[in-house]
Amino acid sequence: MIRYNGLMREVNLLVIGFGNVGREFVRLVEKKRDHIKQNYGLKPVWLTVFRRQMRWNIPHDKDILPLLKRDSSSLFYPLQTGNIKDDLKLCLQTASSGVLVDCSVSDPQTGKPGYEIWKSALEAGWHVVTASKGPLVHDFKGLKEASQKKGCQLGISGAAAAALPTVDLARFALAGTEIRRIEGILNGTSNYILIRMSEGQPYVEALEEAQAKKIAEPDPSMDVKGWDTAFKILIIANAVFGAAYNLEDMTVTGIDTLTLKELEEASKKGLRFKLLGRYEKMNEGEVLEVAPKALDPSHPLYPVTGSEKGISFETDTMGTITVIGGRSSPMGAAAALLKDLINICSST
Amino acid sequence: MIRYNGLMREVNLLVIGFGNVGREFVRLVEKKRDHIKQNYGLKPVWLTVFRRQMRWNIPHDKDILPLLKRDSSSLFYPLQTGNIKDDLKLCLQTASSGVLVDCSVSDPQTGKPGYEIWKSALEAGWHVVTASKGPLVHDFKGLKEASQKKGCQLGISGAAAAALPTVDLARFALAGTEIRRIEGILNGTSNYILIRMSEGQPYVEALEEAQAKKIAEPDPSMDVKGWDTAFKILIIANAVFGAAYNLEDMTVTGIDTLTLKELEEASKKGLRFKLLGRYEKMNEGEVLEVAPKALDPSHPLYPVTGSEKGISFETDTMGTITVIGGRSSPMGAAAALLKDLINICSST
Repeated sequence: MIRYNGLMREVNLLVIGFGNVGREFVRLVEKKRDHIKQNYGLKPVWLTVFRRQMRWNIPHDKDILPLLKRDSSSLFYPLQTGNIKDDLKLCLQTASSGVLVDCSVSDPQTGKPGYEIWKSALEAGWHVVTASKGPLVHDFKGLKEASQKKGCQLGISGAAAAALPTVDLARFALAGTEIRRIEGILNGTSNYILIRMSEGQPYVEALEEAQAKKIAEPDPSMDVKGWDTAFKILIIANAVFGAAYNLEDMTVTGIDTLTLKELEEASKKGLRFKLLGRYEKMNEGEVLEVAPKALDPSHPLYPVTGSEKGISFETDTMGTITVIGGRSSPMGAAAALLKDLINICSST
Repeated sequence: MIRYNGLMREVNLLVIGFGNVGREFVRLVEKKRDHIKQNYGLKPVWLTVFRRQMRWNIPHDKDILPLLKRDSSSLFYPLQTGNIKDDLKLCLQTASSGVLVDCSVSDPQTGKPGYEIWKSALEAGWHVVTASKGPLVHDFKGLKEASQKKGCQLGISGAAAAALPTVDLARFALAGTEIRRIEGILNGTSNYILIRMSEGQPYVEALEEAQAKKIAEPDPSMDVKGWDTAFKILIIANAVFGAAYNLEDMTVTGIDTLTLKELEEASKKGLRFKLLGRYEKMNEGEVLEVAPKALDPSHPLYPVTGSEKGISFETDTMGTITVIGGRSSPMGAAAALLKDLINICSST
């Protein structure tokens, strides 16, 4: 926001993954190139975008916005070495620092493909900014330690709830407080389906409608069974508390077992069912869980409508702070990646 | 949050003002001393608290929490030099850096008493953290420039809406976005009175009830006439946009001219009147205003109840982000001061 008066700094960028989010991230950085320079003193320098077993060496000397409208197969060329890890190492060697931006689809059990790639990047002194949850769910602690060893940072907003502020809100706006409880509506698909069900639409129909509107994915099981929410609250809790919780510490219940009758009865009482990710400090220890809950109108997340998201932090000294909103789209995710990139490069 | 592993740093602290907020700030820092050390690597070191024409040199060698329960007249002694400015200069000379914490009541027209004191502190290389709005309303630009000249920072959360995150949310969580509109319910007293009026209580009775509950001050004119909201949205807009707006750029309308009939008619239509501070980028330039508005249920600040506060940011890439909550109390204000202190000392 505040115009930058210092020296311009170049930021080398490597991207892995070029689906909707990766493509939108490259486009957003290009569209905001002047804004980023003027306000933060940063000059993004593209090295390479990796996509499956292909690479795109983004040209430095021309406007790439028109290229992004093309079918991406015309941009990408085979890897130099034949495998992505060696190609990436060559890239990391060309510059001593920069930011690896992970927009790939990853496996939360193994962290692949990002996990090993992040490790190489962090060891080479590169920061990592991610929209990909897998590596963080797989081994947050190990990645955090690897980053600290080299004085690098992990930017995880894109994996935590994207455009909805979560971890940076806790880190900066709530600095000095003790956070006792976190509750989040972190999955827009589930929230949308629950709202339609509470209006009387059966689960299957509500899901089909959400799919038709591209709110739900063709395979919605991660969303409706609560796993997407679980990954996000797990990542948020680990980041906020510097902890090492994993999926085994959680109980996860989705919305797919809720009946229309339960929803209708809640509505009659003025309650709204929401799929909540929850962290709470109890006398007997911490609780991490995902479950549908019937909220009364006094609950701070009661107003979250449509495919919106929201998160609420209960603190010792500031009371309860609730954030609602943030665009659920590739653009919102790309904006979250850019935010982390700016905050990391402005602070290091 | 994340346990700190580096070197411990001493932070010298000078406080001006020892009303409810000043006292609560000293108490909070003492109560959180271990938390601040363990999580942020900071060791607060008290120099002096100034209160009117008196000073308290806080002892370093004993537990001061019991002292804070006492009548403060037993703690304070006459100034060393006879005037506060010279006494303060002596203090500033004892240490080359630290944080001046302003908890005094100040005049927004002249910025007194803080304005000149801040200037001395900033020139001496000290950061300033404030719950006092006067100096910022009087000359935000001049103070910002004075701070930048010495590489110091201004922590203004305590003056912007205290425990409700505003400027740090914009700075960190919305980095890289273009903020097109800001709307805030920034005055708990007005919100409380409007809610009671919408339930049928006449203005004068609602005000008296708020005073009896200590939500409204004995002289509520700054709150109900919209000036407190005006000061806050002005400070927020100047901080977020690095701008130099002043009160003459604003139109300010309070809630004291609203009739019970207007409120009742709005209620019948399902609308709620709120006193909104608003910044907006329009084609013909920026608008800064304070006025009561009848909000419909789809407005993100519609759910703000009781003496709560809330703020909403409309961005280009992240959609609309709304924060609601934050304790309205001396404790909430003290927590906002501590947050800024931590963020400034952790980043410099």
